[in-house]
Amino acid sequence: MESNVYDVTDWKTPGKPIDPQDDIGAVINSIIADIKQRQTNPADKPGAVIYIPPGTYSLKTRVVVDVSFLTIRGSGHGFSSLSIRYNSNTAGWHEINPGGSHIRVENTDGNSEAFIVSRSGNPRLSSVAFENFCLDGVSFGSNQNSYRNGKVGIRFATDNDSARVRGMGMVYLEQALLIQGPDALDVSGNFIAECGTCVMIIGGSQASKISDNHLGAGPVGFTIFAENSNGLLITGNNIFPRGIDSVHIKNSYRSNISSNRLQSFYPGSITLEGNCKENLISSNMFERQVETYGPFIGVGNGLDDDFGVVQVNGDGNTITSNHVTLIIPPDQVKPANGTAAIFRIKNGDQNLVGANHIISNLAVHTVVLDAGTTNSHVFDSGTAAQLLANSSSYGFRPTP
Amino acid sequence: MESNVYDVTDWKTPGKPIDPQDDIGAVINSIIADIKQRQTNPADKPGAVIYIPPGTYSLKTRVVVDVSFLTIRGSGHGFSSLSIRYNSNTAGWHEINPGGSHIRVENTDGNSEAFIVSRSGNPRLSSVAFENFCLDGVSFGSNQNSYRNGKVGIRFATDNDSARVRGMGMVYLEQALLIQGPDALDVSGNFIAECGTCVMIIGGSQASKISDNHLGAGPVGFTIFAENSNGLLITGNNIFPRGIDSVHIKNSYRSNISSNRLQSFYPGSITLEGNCKENLISSNMFERQVETYGPFIGVGNGLDDDFGVVQVNGDGNTITSNHVTLIIPPDQVKPANGTAAIFRIKNGDQNLVGANHIISNLAVHTVVLDAGTTNSHVFDSGTAAQLLANSSSYGFRPTP
Amino acid sequence: MESNVYDVTDWKTPGKPIDPQDDIGAVINSIIADIKQRQTNPADKPGAVIYIPPGTYSLKTRVVVDVSFLTIRGSGHGFSSLSIRYNSNTAGWHEINPGGSHIRVENTDGNSEAFIVSRSGNPRLSSVAFENFCLDGVSFGSNQNSYRNGKVGIRFATDNDSARVRGMGMVYLEQALLIQGPDALDVSGNFIAECGTCVMIIGGSQASKISDNHLGAGPVGFTIFAENSNGLLITGNNIFPRGIDSVHIKNSYRSNISSNRLQSFYPGSITLEGNCKENLISSNMFERQVETYGPFIGVGNGLDDDFGVVQVNGDGNTITSNHVTLIIPPDQVKPANGTAAIFRIKNGDQNLVGANHIISNLAVHTVVLDAGTTNSHVFDSGTAAQLLANSSSYGFRPTP
Repeated sequence: MESNVYDVTDWKTPGKPIDPQDDIGAVINSIIADIKQRQTNPADKPGAVIYIPPGTYSLKTRVVVDVSFLTIRGSGHGFSSLSIRYNSNTAGWHEINPGGSHIRVENTDGNSEAFIVSRSGNPRLSSVAFENFCLDGVSFGSNQNSYRNGKVGIRFATDNDSARVRGMGMVYLEQALLIQGPDALDVSGNFIAECGTCVMIIGGSQASKISDNHLGAGPVGFTIFAENSNGLLITGNNIFPRGIDSVHIKNSYRSNISSNRLQSFYPGSITLEGNCKENLISSNMFERQVETYGPFIGVGNGLDDDFGVVQVNGDGNTITSNHVTLIIPPDQVKPANGTAAIFRIKNGDQNLVGANHIISNLAVHTVVLDAGTTNSHVFDSGTAAQLLANSSSYGFRPTP
Repeated sequence: MESNVYDVTDWKTPGKPIDPQDDIGAVINSIIADIKQRQTNPADKPGAVIYIPPGTYSLKTRVVVDVSFLTIRGSGHGFSSLSIRYNSNTAGWHEINPGGSHIRVENTDGNSEAFIVSRSGNPRLSSVAFENFCLDGVSFGSNQNSYRNGKVGIRFATDNDSARVRGMGMVYLEQALLIQGPDALDVSGNFIAECGTCVMIIGGSQASKISDNHLGAGPVGFTIFAENSNGLLITGNNIFPRGIDSVHIKNSYRSNISSNRLQSFYPGSITLEGNCKENLISSNMFERQVETYGPFIGVGNGLDDDFGVVQVNGDGNTITSNHVTLIIPPDQVKPANGTAAIFRIKNGDQNLVGANHIISNLAVHTVVLDAGTTNSHVFDSGTAAQLLANSSSYGFRPTP
Repeated sequence: MESNVYDVTDWKTPGKPIDPQDDIGAVINSIIADIKQRQTNPADKPGAVIYIPPGTYSLKTRVVVDVSFLTIRGSGHGFSSLSIRYNSNTAGWHEINPGGSHIRVENTDGNSEAFIVSRSGNPRLSSVAFENFCLDGVSFGSNQNSYRNGKVGIRFATDNDSARVRGMGMVYLEQALLIQGPDALDVSGNFIAECGTCVMIIGGSQASKISDNHLGAGPVGFTIFAENSNGLLITGNNIFPRGIDSVHIKNSYRSNISSNRLQSFYPGSITLEGNCKENLISSNMFERQVETYGPFIGVGNGLDDDFGVVQVNGDGNTITSNHVTLIIPPDQVKPANGTAAIFRIKNGDQNLVGANHIISNLAVHTVVLDAGTTNSHVFDSGTAAQLLANSSSYGFRPTP
């Protein structure tokens, strides 16, 4: 049988040969063209695996994935901190760049994406997988701490089913992973850090899963963002600073955000924006500290500390069994002399905050109920003095 | 040294050559025979890896795995929805079948299993692994929505230790994964959907783990079933409809079912049947909706809505920090004019339901304590009016 | 381009050829030397992957990993219980040793480690990965139940970033995994059992993750140990007996230990030692039973049962939504006529124990507050009679 196993370093691009070190994007596009040319029977299109051995590759041409069942796979996520590198004197360093199956995203084709996954018609693309290689945005330009370079690692531009992004490394991209309309997406075991945004789900999703990752965006974006989603499971992630939010959910229903560790330097570790219904936030460890790394001192997300470590907008959400530590030097609270909030219910009916534990160096409001909130349930999440209720429609029981 | 790395597309079956596209089962059996013939010293039987490149393979002969340390591995789980395909007009579709390392289960040998893992004598089979390929049952026959075709994907027929099933895709099998007597089993990262049953553990298990999967059975079976198990960990799974139950545990002790997302269209998302002791159900997101997909409207699991979203039989179980959304059009409640139950304690002593949040469009019983239940503990899981206690042996505290 | 893919069975060691079956350590060191000799430009050191096919290999020379972006990968974790084997009559057994990509750790070089990861200078080693092979300590010597042989599987001896240990099998090592100073470490999907200690993090860590593993140490060591760590996430693990502790955390802050299953035969399933601040223990299933396996009956960890199933030292820790089963034959309680403790707050301020469920055959103290503890919060975790408060500085509410 014909082989459906490709190695970018073995592939002979028809016509003019292309060295994958010069443009791995053009090489992969050529391989995909070969797959499409060979697999034409709708009943028998198994796809292929494209292997990227460890090595340093430039990507100058965007890859267009428009076949189902394609796995693009390397041997090494290759993450290395560029933030530390660009803020250090690297004289005498053993190495200064990421590695592994290392793709430098250097598009010269006018496109912003290294990979775009897109197809019109039916069915949706199924089972496209990216595994265990490194997408490196190389540089944020004149200000290496700007998190701006317009580069996108992987963009799913059309609705898709059962895709996997596993074990990848991504660094110094303005948007690492941007996914339109996934069904049963699996983003797991990745190391995505020092990117403007890490995982963005747009246009709605269902039954997707973001689990078991190391993630941390920059102050210009979100670490995890999802809109119009139902049934998103976010669990087992270790989320570093410095995203605007660690998890930002908009107009989404019935997410389960549990058993994560989330550290942040700004208000708003988790924000439920717009009309968010019946999401669960449980068994998470929140650590809110302040920035101590020189280049980012003074940078913030523009929010005041009464925004809440968690802010809820919408109905029927549940916040239980979380631990929150908030430690802010008193003179860094915003606004000055303000009172930091932990769980702020900005609006909505029937939200529940129960059996959470808050530790702080400050006198905080562990729960804030805004005017207009109704039928809130607050219990075992602080003292009566720590509750700020601007509504009278709630039940309350202090922690014993 | 001799190679223990096999590729089904390279293997020269001794005697009459067999094309793996015609019968990958016979090819793999021939490889296993080679392993057994070469590895005869009990002190030195490292096993092997059998690689299945992306491609379309028919399996006509059941594979018998009777050696330890065998990994069967593909490059692509290849899931694609056959349910959508068979209920659609596929004219003009790009592709109509699953793909990846794609095995069509088409036994002509009189057996129902694609793979059986079985060995008598000692020790138990250790470290058998199935990774990253697709088992496709092809069709449910004259009624493509029947979930009946008698096909079994992988059956472990004898007790086993430290087996792994990871990253597989399975579709349109009557039973996807049927496992006898596992110790320290790991079922993770799989995509098993549109199967009669997804993961069935029979004959007892210990210290096993079903985590990080996408799963969803059909209305004739269970998504996860386990009996006589101790210490089963079920976490991080995103479970779709339409299994009879999402998780059905029978006569099992000390499971931990936490941080999952479970959606179902029928009563009984989780059932603890028989004598279930001291299981924990925590930090899960339950979504109980009704069927809206044409071919399955009117199909149910035969249970009334007072069965409970979660039903408990046995002693000392714990249900905490869960969110449950139940939305049923009033005229679809069964029986008509009945009251749906969320957590039903059918029998048992010392069961605890605490700090859960229930949202519904209906007036529901958030907790039902059946006659004969004793020493139940119910708190922070609804109002007094939402409790239906047919026993007087319980403690209760309403949610503030 | 030059290949960065190595296979230990293909590598021609320069000078005197070495058979990897005789000394895979020397072979891998030779490969690493080749990588270092070829990759000398600090801007272009992608590292490599070294593949270990299934087979039986002796390691006589310690491997020194001193390059970033190196993946060492096998095809099979190969775990098989040596504890059962050495305590059985193995006549007629199919096999008696572990397998897969099976390395017998038999150092003759005077070193205790099979692998050491170590480099001075800057930056820290990044993205070193160990995947899917077996490290077998072979024997514990004259007493096969001693858990003592001085052997270390993998030791990270200098600070490191974004390392991964995934899918490994380790057995009969005195220390399986010993890691100095990790940042964003990922230890997941491993099977590490019958080792003196399984996962030890020393010298501090940040943002690390131990998830989705099967783990179980021997009675001489800890299953998971971490000191001076911040933000360690321990989730989704199924932890067997017989470690001194299942999880032992020392002077560590803001860990999240959630959604695990932990079985133990001794007091102290989780211990927070020294100055442990603001750690979360949530949604775990604890099973405390007694030893029934002949060779280990009578072996203990030296602790009395009033030590607690969980013992807390430090401030602001949180214990919620856990289930604990403790079953000890009354005549095996230590000291005789003593009362077993479940959650013991040994010292510290503002620790919280809420919404936990304890089942026992004994009259136990579900919570013990030692003299000197202050501002403890205890609720919904037992009756007033089950609380032993040797301090008066606490709030309490019994389970309804």
